Amino acid sequence: MDAWFGIDIGGTSVKTALVDNVGHILVSQSFDTGAERDAETVAVRIKDTLELLKARLKDGGSTCQVHGAGVGIPGFLDLDTGIVAEAVNLGWTDVPFQSMLEQLLQLPVAMENDANLAALGEAFAGAGADRRVVLCATVGTGIGGGIVIDGRLHRGVNGMAGEIGHLVVKRDGGILCNCGHHGCLETVASATAIVRQAQALQSAGKLPADKVVTEAKDVFDLAERGNEAALSVITDAANWLGYGLSLAAITLNPDVIVIGGGVSRAEERFLMPMQAAFEQYALERVAQAAEVRAATLSNDAGVIGAARLAQQRVSSNA
Amino acid sequence: MDAWFGIDIGGTSVKTALVDNVGHILVSQSFDTGAERDAETVAVRIKDTLELLKARLKDGGSTCQVHGAGVGIPGFLDLDTGIVAEAVNLGWTDVPFQSMLEQLLQLPVAMENDANLAALGEAFAGAGADRRVVLCATVGTGIGGGIVIDGRLHRGVNGMAGEIGHLVVKRDGGILCNCGHHGCLETVASATAIVRQAQALQSAGKLPADKVVTEAKDVFDLAERGNEAALSVITDAANWLGYGLSLAAITLNPDVIVIGGGVSRAEERFLMPMQAAFEQYALERVAQAAEVRAATLSNDAGVIGAARLAQQRVSSNA
Repeated sequence: MDAWFGIDIGGTSVKTALVDNVGHILVSQSFDTGAERDAETVAVRIKDTLELLKARLKDGGSTCQVHGAGVGIPGFLDLDTGIVAEAVNLGWTDVPFQSMLEQLLQLPVAMENDANLAALGEAFAGAGADRRVVLCATVGTGIGGGIVIDGRLHRGVNGMAGEIGHLVVKRDGGILCNCGHHGCLETVASATAIVRQAQALQSAGKLPADKVVTEAKDVFDLAERGNEAALSVITDAANWLGYGLSLAAITLNPDVIVIGGGVSRAEERFLMPMQAAFEQYALERVAQAAEVRAATLSNDAGVIGAARLAQQRVSSNA
Repeated sequence: MDAWFGIDIGGTSVKTALVDNVGHILVSQSFDTGAERDAETVAVRIKDTLELLKARLKDGGSTCQVHGAGVGIPGFLDLDTGIVAEAVNLGWTDVPFQSMLEQLLQLPVAMENDANLAALGEAFAGAGADRRVVLCATVGTGIGGGIVIDGRLHRGVNGMAGEIGHLVVKRDGGILCNCGHHGCLETVASATAIVRQAQALQSAGKLPADKVVTEAKDVFDLAERGNEAALSVITDAANWLGYGLSLAAITLNPDVIVIGGGVSRAEERFLMPMQAAFEQYALERVAQAAEVRAATLSNDAGVIGAARLAQQRVSSNA
C-alpha cells in the first residue's frame, strides 16, 4: 500500500501519522516536544517514530511503501532553501530542517507552515473536501488561516496568505497584537480575546466570581448556565469573526469557509452569530456562494495536510 | 502570425483589438456602444469590426490567423452556460452571448467580467507581467478589482473574487453603496467619493467656489494649486484605499498590487499616501512582499486581457 508520512510539529507535541492516498490515517503517534527541542533531537525522534509506525503497521498485518514526508512547522519558512527562518515556539532560527530530515528519513521531504497544512488537510479530506476554493480559519489562542484553491495550497508569495488573524478590523485604536499592530482580528475574536473580555467583566463584578475565568470554555459554560454577560462576550467575538471573514471572502470568493479550533464546536452559541455577521457584511453573491462549516478533522488536520503535501510534491498528478 | 481577438464591452464604448501571442496590440478599433445596444446588434458590429481589423492588417502587409476571441462584459456571467445573467449598463438579462458570438465569428469565444480581464491584461503584459500573485484595483466611479495567480485569473467560485470595492471598511455607519451595504471601500476611496467630499466642502464654503467640482480631476487641480482642503480630501481617500488594500493583501499575499484608473496617474498626491496607509495596516512581511505599482496598459488592459483569456482557453499550455 502507498503511504505518506505526515508530521505536525507544535510547541507542545509533535504529531505524526502514516496516511494513505485518500487522506485516511493508517497509524499515528504523538510525542511531547519536550525541553530538548533543538532541531537535531526532534528530527531523530521523528525518524524513530517513523520506524515505530511502520513496525506497528507490519504487526497489524499490513505493509506499506512510504514515498515521502511532509512536515508542518509553526513559523516562517524559506521554502526555496528548505530553511526554517524563525520558529519562536521551538526556539529555531535559520535551521536547514528540510535537508536534515531528508538525510535521516531517506525520503523526499516537503515543508510548510502548520496553519497552511491544517487548511490543506481540511480541504483534502475534511470539511472542504468537495469544494474548489477553501478558506480555513482556526480560532484558538490566536486566529490562523489558510487557503486552498483547486486542491492546491495558495501560500502567497512568502507564505503569509490567509493570515486573517491580522486583518486590522479596529482601524482606530484597538488592543496591541503580537504582530505589532493594533486592532487585529485576533485581538477581538480569538479564544484569548474571549477570556480577556470575560476577565474584565469579572473584575467589574458583572460575571459570577465563584470560578476565575482562565479559558474560553469557562465563558461558554457560564453562557450555558444562562449568564447574559458571558453570552454577550461570545456573541461579540463571533460578530467580529464574521466581519473579518467577510473581508477575506470578498477578496477570495470561496465556496466554503471552514472554522476550526475549540470555538467551532459551539455551533449555536458561536457559529450562528458568526454566520449572521458574515452575511451582514459580505456581498450578497459572495455570502450565497460560501457555506460556513465546522472543521471535521480536529487535531488530525495537520498530519493529513502534511501527508497530502508530500503526495503532491512526489506525484505530480496528485 | 498568430492572433487573438480581444473585445471589451463597456456602457460607453466597445473596444476591440487583434493581439499577438505576447500581448502586443497589432491593430485596434473602438465603436460607441450606442443607443441600439441589444446583444444581437452589438454582436454583429463586433463581427464587422473583426473583418475591418483583419483587412487593415492585410493592407499593412501582415497576415494573421485568428484562433479565438475573448470578451469582457460589465456584469454577472454564468460561465458554465455562457450566459450574461445581468449587465445593468447594457440592459442585458439572461443573454446567451457566448454562443451568439461564436456563431457569428466562427471562433471559440471565452467570456469574462471586464474588471477580471483588465487584471489579466495587466498581469500578462502590464505592471504585473513579472509577478506571481497579482492584485489589481481600478479606482474610478467605483472600485473594481481582479486577481491573477501564476498567470491564471482567480475568479473565485462565482466570479466575485477581488471585488475589493465592496469591502466594508466603515463597519459602523458609512454611506449607502450601490450594493446595498453601508461603508464599502468605494464609498470612501473612489473618484466618486472624492467628488462627493469636495462638493460637501464647497457647499460649506471651504473650497473655492469659482468652479463647481464635477470630477476628481477638479479636486486634484485644486490640490495642485495648493488648496489644503482639497489635498486633505485626496489624502483621506488614499488612506482608505491603502487600508482596504491591506485587508485584501493579508488574505492574498501578493507580490504586486496594480492600481489603475485616473487616480493612479497622481503618483505623489494619491499613490504615496495610499502606500503609507497600506504599510501602516498590512502585516510587515505582507507589506514587504507587495510592491505597489501604477497600471501601465491604461484603457488597453481589457482587450489585452480578453485576448489572453482566449489564448489560454484555446492553447492549453498558454
